[in-house]
Formats: sequence, C-alpha cells, structure tokens
Amino acid sequence: MKKLINAVENVLRESLDGFAAAHADLVRVAHDPTYVARADAPVRGKVALISGGGSGHEPLHAGFVGHGMLHAACPGEVFTSPTPDQMVAAAGAVDGGAGILLIVKNYSGDVMNFEMAAEMLPGAQATVLVNDDVAVEDSTYTTGRRGVAGTMVVEKIVGAAAEAGAELAACQALGERVNQATGSMGVALTSCTVPAAGTPTFTLGADEMEMGVGIHGEPGRRRVRLAQADAIAEEMIGAICQSLAPARGTPVLLHVNGFGGTPLMELYLMYHAAAKLCAARGLEIARSLVGSYTTSLDMAGCSLTLTRLDDELISLWDAPVHTPALRWGR
Amino acid sequence: MKKLINAVENVLRESLDGFAAAHADLVRVAHDPTYVARADAPVRGKVALISGGGSGHEPLHAGFVGHGMLHAACPGEVFTSPTPDQMVAAAGAVDGGAGILLIVKNYSGDVMNFEMAAEMLPGAQATVLVNDDVAVEDSTYTTGRRGVAGTMVVEKIVGAAAEAGAELAACQALGERVNQATGSMGVALTSCTVPAAGTPTFTLGADEMEMGVGIHGEPGRRRVRLAQADAIAEEMIGAICQSLAPARGTPVLLHVNGFGGTPLMELYLMYHAAAKLCAARGLEIARSLVGSYTTSLDMAGCSLTLTRLDDELISLWDAPVHTPALRWGR
Repeated sequence: MKKLINAVENVLRESLDGFAAAHADLVRVAHDPTYVARADAPVRGKVALISGGGSGHEPLHAGFVGHGMLHAACPGEVFTSPTPDQMVAAAGAVDGGAGILLIVKNYSGDVMNFEMAAEMLPGAQATVLVNDDVAVEDSTYTTGRRGVAGTMVVEKIVGAAAEAGAELAACQALGERVNQATGSMGVALTSCTVPAAGTPTFTLGADEMEMGVGIHGEPGRRRVRLAQADAIAEEMIGAICQSLAPARGTPVLLHVNGFGGTPLMELYLMYHAAAKLCAARGLEIARSLVGSYTTSLDMAGCSLTLTRLDDELISLWDAPVHTPALRWGR
Repeated sequence: MKKLINAVENVLRESLDGFAAAHADLVRVAHDPTYVARADAPVRGKVALISGGGSGHEPLHAGFVGHGMLHAACPGEVFTSPTPDQMVAAAGAVDGGAGILLIVKNYSGDVMNFEMAAEMLPGAQATVLVNDDVAVEDSTYTTGRRGVAGTMVVEKIVGAAAEAGAELAACQALGERVNQATGSMGVALTSCTVPAAGTPTFTLGADEMEMGVGIHGEPGRRRVRLAQADAIAEEMIGAICQSLAPARGTPVLLHVNGFGGTPLMELYLMYHAAAKLCAARGLEIARSLVGSYTTSLDMAGCSLTLTRLDDELISLWDAPVHTPALRWGR
C-alpha cells in the first residue's frame, strides 16, 4: 500500500484536522464525537442540513459544508457508517430552530444509524434518502439502489432552498424530487485500497473494468473487457436514461465525477463522450460539473450523473454556494 | 494501460473539446493551431497573460483561463511543448492592446518555443520564467530549476494585477517577484503513464518513492524507502525553506498539490503535516490551497509549495477569479 499517511489509525483525524485548518474561515471540526460544522452555525431560523457517511469519498460530504449547502457533515471511518452520537452532536451544534434535514445515502448501515439518530433528536427532523445509482438493485451493504454522486446534487439544490428560507417539509419534498430526477452510474478501471486493509478491495485484470461499480468497490452489473470511452459512456447514459426517461428537450445537469485516481484530462474526455450522447437523445445540457466530487479513495474510474432540471432547480443550482469544494456566486 | 480514452491520437482534442463545452461561458478552444482563450477576449486595454506547456498537467494551464487569471493557454500534446504558432495564434486572439505577458515554466523545449513565439509577436511582449522547484538543479528536459506548481501562484497573482490594469513592465516585475518568493518540491509514490507510450514512464518498487520528482516523472533527489507523511513533509518543507529562507513571522501561502492519482484525504493529511512544520518555523500561514492543480496524469504523490506573502500579494491572491479550476469572489 502506497499512501501519504502516518499511522493507519490516525488517517481520518489528521486529514480532518488538516481540512479544518485549511478552511478555518468556513468550517470547524469537533472530535469525540466527530463532525464538521459551518463556522457560522447555527444559522438562526434556517433548516439545518446534515449529511454524512463513511470517509474515503472526499470532498463528499465535509467539503460541501458551508453557505448554501450543508450545515454539518458526519464522517465515519473509511467506508464505515458514522454513528448516531455523531449525528446527534452535529444536530445540537447546527440546529437553528427551524428543523433538521438529514440527507442519507442509501446504505443499510447509514440508514440504520441515521434512523437511530433521528429518533434521538429532540426537535423537528426529516430525512431524504438518496438512491441515484441505476446500476443495480441490492448490492453489498445495500438493499435497493445505492446513493452515489447524485447526493451532491441533492445537497446543493436543497441547501440553496434552505438558505433562502424554505421550511423543513418543503426542503424534504424538494430533496425527494431531486433524487427522483437524478440517475448515476459508474465504472472502475482499478480497485481502491482502504488504508486499514492495506490491500486492494477487489482485483481487476489488466484488461478488465467493473461496469456499474459502487463507490466502495462493490460489484456492479458485470465485469467486462476494458472498452473505449465512447462505448463506456453509451452504456452508462443508456442505463441512466432508461431510469429517468427524460423527454426530448429536457434540460439536464450533466455531472462527470472522478473516483479519485482518474486525471481531469480523462474526465473531460468522458464529458465530451457523454455530451454527444445527450445531444443525440435531444437533451439540453443546461448545466455541467466535471471533477472528482464523490470519490472512492484512489480508485481509477468515473461516474456519470444526469439530473432532469426545470427553472426552479436551475435557479437553486445557480444560487451562491461557498464551501471548500464547491464555490460560486460569492 | 487503463485509461478512459478512445484512440490515443485523439485524447488531447476530445478532452479539450469536452473542456470547452463544459465551460462555454468562460472559454473557447481553437484547433490548428490549438489554444484556449477567454470567452470575452480580447479584453481591451489590459495586459494579456498567456501560458502553456505540455498537456497532462490539468487543470494547469487551460483551467486557469478566465477573469482575473490567464487570457489564453497553449496546450501541447501530452508532456510535449506547444509550438510557436500556437502562441502566436493565441496572442492574436487575446491581444487587448496593452501588451502580452508570456508565463513559461522552465523546461528547455517550452523556453525555446516561447522565445521563438516572442520574436514573432508584432507588439509589446515580455516573459516571466517560472522555476520554483527546489529539488534539483538541471534535470531531464531542463537546464536550471524546473517550473512546477508555483506557476499557478504566479498566474493567479499576476492575473489579478493585469485585471486591475497594471502595465506590462509592472506585470513582468511582479511575476518575477512572485517566482523568487515561491518554492516547491514533490514526491511520487507511483509513475504516470503517458497515453501514447502505454506503459509507466518509470518504475518504482512497492516500497519506494521518488523524492523531489518532476511533474513529468523526471528523477528527483533520490529514490528512497516509502516514508511516513510527517517525514516526507519535513524533507520537503526543509528544502523549500532552505531556498526561500523566510524569516520567522513571514506570512506564507501553503499549497498542497496532488499529482492526479492521490485522494483529497491524503492531501489534507499532508497539509496537516506541513502546517505543523510551518508553525514550528514561526511562519504564519496566511492563505492555503489544497487540491490537484498541477498534475502529472495519474501519478500518485504530491508537491508542497510555499510563497512568501506581503499585503500586496495577499490582496492580489484574494482578488476575484473566475476560471474553470479556480474561482472566488464572483
């Protein structure tokens, strides 16, 4: 295992402390229990958005804490669900009196722990469950579809609504609407290596790829021979469009997400491939995002995400955001 | 070779076309000869900043084209210098009548081709040569020190000055001052693989790293056993500080740069390690930047960069920038 770390058991803490120091104007980190909160939290009178999950997917979620997006993130150990006490502590720190919205990726451990936390929260709370991965139903760690890169889209759009003063029920309904309008699918060219394991999570042959891979290296649809970018994009856009069934003329967000080990040059090439396919289906690419936002440690590969947009969603996507990983409009 | 590409010979073009499509509000791309220009260029009355170099270092340089930074970038083939006709065409497209400033990383091929271009430009022009890599004097491709991640710092700060209306001579002097105030050093845990080569540029043992590596995989100071993050950071910060000799109390920019294959989690851990060392030397970390900005395709590893700041440089660093890869203040 070749990683820039000290002791395996301190990876998360040292990384979070570095993150907090590098972005001290935006966030603060608490330990025991661990959470990352907006530096200006609690924001009085606003619904507080809290997300979280296993670490190793950075910048998701802590990188999206800040103005116009999340109020707190609860990072678990690498690929391990955070515990309910983290969420309860985070909620206590960021509760602005207008309720707590929990945004949860659909993994059985995350769902269970966020449910336990929800039962322990004293005030109003609601949950949005994200399950945008169209690759497979049921998988390692998950019953139903997995929550992947579309989670960031939910967090951005609902975060904008909360910042604008939307009430808890409206934020929840909006989150569910965005989730329904969003589909993703990924492909892995290499495995990731969890620091505490020290060896690759799975093995791929020199000419193989995992089509439909999950963001922890879970199996996807099938293991196949490495294909060209155009063919990979075609299978992924095809699967996403089969799920979303966007009518011709629908404005969409096209998000190309790197898994951590893939250079930007390849991500833009994949964008080029995916955009051609969207155009061929009559979709209007109204907004784009290319970069490594929902990663799987050092895995090489990428995912494509489409969100069906409308004027309201475009306006919320465009609203100012100021977080460590996503920033525009201020 | 496992890459998300179609034909090897089309990688650059397809990637640039994807880049231009994803950021059509900010940039436009021209082919034959190839350059990327600000969508609103030429900007009348402002010095036009042009940089360029081999591709494979994205987002450097094309990702820094936009308001407050570069006016154009000239991407060569992967790890291959751009040609003078690219620079001349770019200059023709972005010349706002106040002169052209060429920002060149110190590699013999880049220097030669930018010099040829400078001789062909009809109007006023000047050059800033960046050589921030403190690892080695003379190396593969280079006489003298190499230009690496500090180039982005030069481009940001001089770009802000040009946007504010600074004249050509002042921009050049500022660029040279920032270069003098900047030192970088890198470490590789794995090689990169150039698409057209198909095999890794160099070979590292499972427990080896290349200390002082260049951004094309050039040899550094020495090949040693993989060390812990703290020890790696100590050698790099030590070498940089030996070169910059910052007095105690000096405000600095600390930039942790990923080489393309290293997860953000490790980069923040390296930031944590480097920040402790800066504090121990009495340096004040006034500004921070963590992310993969000057990459080497899929190489795992990172570089550290320090720039000695003062009030003027902090103000220029903080000035609004709106490019595909760097954005704040608007």
